[in-house]
Amino acid sequence: MIHSRVPVSDLREHVGRTVSVCGWVNTLRLQRHMQFVIVRDHTGMVQVTHKRDNGPLEAQFEALTPESAVKITGRVVDAAQVKLGGLEIVPEAVEVLNPAVTPLPIDEHTGLEQRMDWRFLDVRRRPATQLLFAVQTTLEQGMREYVYAQGATEMHTPKLMGTASESGAEVFEVGYFGRSAYLAQSPQFYKQMAIAAGIDKVFEIGPVFRAEPSFTSRHATEFTGVDVELAWIDGVEDVMAFEEQMLAHTIAKVADAHGEAIAEHFGVEVTVPTTPFPRVTMADAQEILRKGGWDPAGVKEDLDPEGERSISAHIEEATGHEFVFITHYPVGIRPFYHMRAADDSSVTLSFDLLWKGLEVTTGAQREHRYDVLLKQAAEKGMSPEPMQDYLNAFRYGCPPHGGLGMGLGRVLMVMLGLDSIRQASFLFRGPNRLTP
Amino acid sequence: MIHSRVPVSDLREHVGRTVSVCGWVNTLRLQRHMQFVIVRDHTGMVQVTHKRDNGPLEAQFEALTPESAVKITGRVVDAAQVKLGGLEIVPEAVEVLNPAVTPLPIDEHTGLEQRMDWRFLDVRRRPATQLLFAVQTTLEQGMREYVYAQGATEMHTPKLMGTASESGAEVFEVGYFGRSAYLAQSPQFYKQMAIAAGIDKVFEIGPVFRAEPSFTSRHATEFTGVDVELAWIDGVEDVMAFEEQMLAHTIAKVADAHGEAIAEHFGVEVTVPTTPFPRVTMADAQEILRKGGWDPAGVKEDLDPEGERSISAHIEEATGHEFVFITHYPVGIRPFYHMRAADDSSVTLSFDLLWKGLEVTTGAQREHRYDVLLKQAAEKGMSPEPMQDYLNAFRYGCPPHGGLGMGLGRVLMVMLGLDSIRQASFLFRGPNRLTP
Repeated sequence: MIHSRVPVSDLREHVGRTVSVCGWVNTLRLQRHMQFVIVRDHTGMVQVTHKRDNGPLEAQFEALTPESAVKITGRVVDAAQVKLGGLEIVPEAVEVLNPAVTPLPIDEHTGLEQRMDWRFLDVRRRPATQLLFAVQTTLEQGMREYVYAQGATEMHTPKLMGTASESGAEVFEVGYFGRSAYLAQSPQFYKQMAIAAGIDKVFEIGPVFRAEPSFTSRHATEFTGVDVELAWIDGVEDVMAFEEQMLAHTIAKVADAHGEAIAEHFGVEVTVPTTPFPRVTMADAQEILRKGGWDPAGVKEDLDPEGERSISAHIEEATGHEFVFITHYPVGIRPFYHMRAADDSSVTLSFDLLWKGLEVTTGAQREHRYDVLLKQAAEKGMSPEPMQDYLNAFRYGCPPHGGLGMGLGRVLMVMLGLDSIRQASFLFRGPNRLTP
Repeated sequence: MIHSRVPVSDLREHVGRTVSVCGWVNTLRLQRHMQFVIVRDHTGMVQVTHKRDNGPLEAQFEALTPESAVKITGRVVDAAQVKLGGLEIVPEAVEVLNPAVTPLPIDEHTGLEQRMDWRFLDVRRRPATQLLFAVQTTLEQGMREYVYAQGATEMHTPKLMGTASESGAEVFEVGYFGRSAYLAQSPQFYKQMAIAAGIDKVFEIGPVFRAEPSFTSRHATEFTGVDVELAWIDGVEDVMAFEEQMLAHTIAKVADAHGEAIAEHFGVEVTVPTTPFPRVTMADAQEILRKGGWDPAGVKEDLDPEGERSISAHIEEATGHEFVFITHYPVGIRPFYHMRAADDSSVTLSFDLLWKGLEVTTGAQREHRYDVLLKQAAEKGMSPEPMQDYLNAFRYGCPPHGGLGMGLGRVLMVMLGLDSIRQASFLFRGPNRLTP
């Protein structure tokens, strides 16, 4: 690294010494007698104060442009009057490592879509966005701490599939040496194969692909999925218990590391959830919602976004809890591989987890009995041939298992109170967006 | 989880008690007076010993098939004569949670390709393969420990790109809502955009895709890449220093957690490398190799696999070190975005890292000066238009930076002494393999 470089957040320890700060020109105030440059790095901002003297430094400061990458060497001086940390740098040398063209293509008034075209500038100039990726890192760290402690193995399953097996629709097709491959919509089949392979607890964070022409604030064609699959479960309750413990651990870690900064930059408080999270069956949820006037036609099998928000609000009012597991989804709106309840074959042993009204996870116990699985696939009109590799995994001793898939962007979205999943990704991908 | 379940490795603590073991039927020995079942779970194997008594248990044992998933409840008994841990289980109940069809499609004599068709059975039945994924998990954990401590941010960059920009060849094309997208060959452009976005140190583990019709033991069409990119470097030496520290930390962690098991199952010793690793320029490496008779025609610009093995062997003999950085690759065999040496424009500030003769990493300082980058792209015959989004990142203050890309499978391959990258993946993908 640039050897004498000191991050802005550490400057206080260097008062009286000459150091280098590497960062970007945040603002320039070139006055008649004085030149002020605010330099920003990934840790904060500092004022560089130069008194005009007709020397070479003065000319260099005059030529600076906003967002240029600079290395400024100078003495750190205590300066109680300076708002930024009560110190300033008196410069001795300025090096422009990469000049920025003027004017910048975006400013504070630019709308979201155009800011996304210049995402690197948008992220760099907004400390809140920098914080978002720090929070994401801590989130993943927290989840890994928890799952590793439970004995999970981190797997990387293929994103290229030979057949569009899980569901023909909404799958991207890839040209593959004269034939077709398909992008995995989730690691579902492969993480179940890992269970059949004797991996006791599977964990994966990776991209998932959905060829859905959805333009909502919560959909993307590519997003980061967090997947867990657990062998030898007694029932779906084991999966829900695992998830709520994982989230409680992880959110506590985020609150500890970034709670204050999140409150400052996003205006939201990170509440560490208590466990267990509330649980409500789909049937009960619908009854509660219908009493409140939801779905007056009485035709909806699934919760729509309005239903999700309402039931979450209801549960939060009743229990004070931001999370709720909706359980026992009807067979008609769940995939063939979800296990059905032994005492009611019209419902699956599945759940969604809602957080403040948004679905962040889908999970289930999986059907591991080959004959039952075949029957359920047939009922959904699916042909066994294209998924024979998957089905074979259930013919040679596949243990009972279940798991969950979580959208990392959605978790960030709710945690930070963002309006759109676009803001929770570094480089968003949607039906109309493949760049930058 | 199945509530009374005890992992095999913990049975010693339960001698005298009744517990349940969940696992697979490893072997059956059904003798005239006695029935022995070896049950295997993810932690080890245990003998279940049943004396024939014409009861229902006897019939259940008689009907068992190898690899069936079973839950066996019984008393743990000290039995010094039993090789497996000096104990056995005297069964009280047997539950077949998922029976295995006989015969199994693979056995110990099956070749690699067919074992790959039944990878879940191959992995489940071979403790060495189970260990491989445990080692992979520890590897990633070790790398993350190191990079987080250095202040890295974990990023997830898109795998879907709007243009096949890095290099037109060897890119998979994806149908994308009536137009084409391309699968990222590496996070190269996006991790550099993250640097331009003010992320100080970028870390990503994720899939990369290569549409190369290569059938060697070291190539795959999809593999797991480990990517690092560092801002504000003084030079490529900073990148090499980062990598050697990261690897030394990580390999020490693997040696500590799995060294003995690796020696037992793979017959190789994990040596924790000292730092710094040896460095040799490409020019010097070629001179050394040519003295030994390599490339008698004198035409090779790059090292071929034989050259990589020979120079590694030479360095190991000279220094005792398993690793060697080959530096200063000629411009002709490096991409346009590698920075060139200020004092010799025919070489790049780049490196490969070889481990025991296999390339495991490529790295470089990147060219961050827009005009120089444009010129270098033009020299390689590349048109700027399709990569304008990437190039724009260098027009608004992109700091000096560099990074590396490492193949996780290759690291595992060398560490465990595997013959082929196929063995280092859970589900391998090659030109002829998209299943299971």
